[in-house]
Amino acid sequence: MIGKLNHVAIVVPDLDKAVATYRDALGAKVSDATDLPEHGVRVVFVELPNTKVELLLPIGENSPVAKFLEKNADGGMHHICYEVDDILAARDKLVASGARVLGNGEPKIGAHGKPVLFLHPKDFCGTLVEIEQV
Amino acid sequence: MIGKLNHVAIVVPDLDKAVATYRDALGAKVSDATDLPEHGVRVVFVELPNTKVELLLPIGENSPVAKFLEKNADGGMHHICYEVDDILAARDKLVASGARVLGNGEPKIGAHGKPVLFLHPKDFCGTLVEIEQV
Repeated sequence: MIGKLNHVAIVVPDLDKAVATYRDALGAKVSDATDLPEHGVRVVFVELPNTKVELLLPIGENSPVAKFLEKNADGGMHHICYEVDDILAARDKLVASGARVLGNGEPKIGAHGKPVLFLHPKDFCGTLVEIEQV
Repeated sequence: MIGKLNHVAIVVPDLDKAVATYRDALGAKVSDATDLPEHGVRVVFVELPNTKVELLLPIGENSPVAKFLEKNADGGMHHICYEVDDILAARDKLVASGARVLGNGEPKIGAHGKPVLFLHPKDFCGTLVEIEQV
């Protein structure tokens, strides 16, 4: 069912420093920063040859990643995103397997403009999983 | 400098359950389990079209991932591995940038039989980073 690993999201306390780490120390190609106020994040994409790392800084009030940063002051890996062809079919299969979908169970439009759902970490090896229809 | 994302490693408390999650619920292709006693882990590879997820169960005494599981009882993302062409050149560039290499700074042979180094999470957005020469 799942296809490619679309991205790994890393929440960071200082986006300029994170960009310097990935661009200058690790020598990766990084995008400009983009504000996504409807998602409560400023994001920089680290473009690797086979996938992406997304560096996320909480912005605004009620950012969904602000609490993560309170618990992890240095930042850290926040979620992993897998691609699916059909998000409703994927959701139904996951729910039938006993997995919990976060929110109201209906896909929302994610940071890439495509339908996404988040799955409960307790059902996925302690890891917050996003599925994105591509 | 860094190339592909080689893998994301997820430490799990129950490897059979993790395999069922990835194979049955998420519908991914998973390998048989392999014991790597010299690395203190039993590993299952989740083979995605563009990269891998490694499910790691601590085995033996002094497993390097046992403490992670004590702190994260449900498991969680443990490290991210990026490929490099020349691990000594990569190390020297990273050290020159102020980053800390774990251990004695000399590459060891990793779980894939290739030279690896681990980098200090505090210097990489709170994320343990492995670099692997491919």
